[in-house]
Amino acid sequence: MSVMGKPILYSYWRSSCSWRVRIALNLKEIPYEIKPISLVKGGGEHHSNEFREINPMEQVPALHIDNHTLIESLNILLYLEETRPHRPLMPADPVKRARVREICEVIAAGIQPLQNLIVLVYVGEERKKEWAQHWITRGFTAVEKLLSSSAGKYCVGDEITLADCCLVPQIFNARRFHVDLRPFPTILRVDRNLENHPAFTAAHPNNQPDCPPEATK
Amino acid sequence: MSVMGKPILYSYWRSSCSWRVRIALNLKEIPYEIKPISLVKGGGEHHSNEFREINPMEQVPALHIDNHTLIESLNILLYLEETRPHRPLMPADPVKRARVREICEVIAAGIQPLQNLIVLVYVGEERKKEWAQHWITRGFTAVEKLLSSSAGKYCVGDEITLADCCLVPQIFNARRFHVDLRPFPTILRVDRNLENHPAFTAAHPNNQPDCPPEATK
Repeated sequence: MSVMGKPILYSYWRSSCSWRVRIALNLKEIPYEIKPISLVKGGGEHHSNEFREINPMEQVPALHIDNHTLIESLNILLYLEETRPHRPLMPADPVKRARVREICEVIAAGIQPLQNLIVLVYVGEERKKEWAQHWITRGFTAVEKLLSSSAGKYCVGDEITLADCCLVPQIFNARRFHVDLRPFPTILRVDRNLENHPAFTAAHPNNQPDCPPEATK
Repeated sequence: MSVMGKPILYSYWRSSCSWRVRIALNLKEIPYEIKPISLVKGGGEHHSNEFREINPMEQVPALHIDNHTLIESLNILLYLEETRPHRPLMPADPVKRARVREICEVIAAGIQPLQNLIVLVYVGEERKKEWAQHWITRGFTAVEKLLSSSAGKYCVGDEITLADCCLVPQIFNARRFHVDLRPFPTILRVDRNLENHPAFTAAHPNNQPDCPPEATK
């Protein structure tokens, strides 16, 4: 692999954490290749010995970039921001940066880990829908409150930030689990302002090379 | 409250996320006041209307600093690092910074959210011990693998970083849930190298103002 080769994103079409990174790469206009890792085929390619060497957490995303493989989506977003300042996705002011990161972290630590696939499998078929709804609703209640003081057109003010890269995929998951989104008008407003943005559209699960044709019908 | 007043940390003695921030404040020699928030008294002071205004996620820590209240522990750690570069807790090299953040994020998003108090209450008494052990063991398996290539005396090389602020409290939780730590020799080595460090000792649950006397017996 050449030093200057395109970054390789290990991604699954419906993974909200992979989606966060796809959005950021698109916004920053960083060309990249997708290496699809199926979370369902044969019990999940993320559990293979080969992929465990790439990410010992056995999950997507992982990003091979600058001759290193990085894991954990917020970490990857911050690495891109530190090394590719083109089209910044973080404000310059330290308090505003904190506002962006706290929305990211509520989603990435407070919501998504509780409703991801491996946890729902462990929770069991009977309880999984109610479980996912419970934790997404709890987290979105906090996000709505945070956005009520930070949001302009987007999560923090009128510029797209890493918080938007995290929020949009989480809204998709909320809809997938039939969460009632009516109590979250600010979340819905930000979502509407981003739904036709080309960087977000191109990163959408339905537009991924590994999206099964039946999913988009 | 004066502009130059000491930062106020909303903290609970046994909260591992509060503990992360206590360590960083101590390492950076930032004087602070603790405002204890009991997670048990009267169903939990973190669920009060008053505290919900401080943190809509209804959890500790929160840090009042520079006339703003910040939530989410990794966010707070990064804010301290950005605004108080004294005694840095992050390397300068971007790839090494990523190595620190990925250890932090495996713990803060991949382990702790699945074994925290509110989740265990929701899981139920019968299953909670096995549940906590399962997710801590899974996460520590990944952390051990990451440390096997990054660790020197501490998590990443021979300087204390934010990764150490996250790891030590998680080891305490692992012991609390009787996780078998023998498969994790590098984690245990880093822990031994930090157990007598004054900044870590002062931040230990047993040395908090709200630690009940019976807990230290």
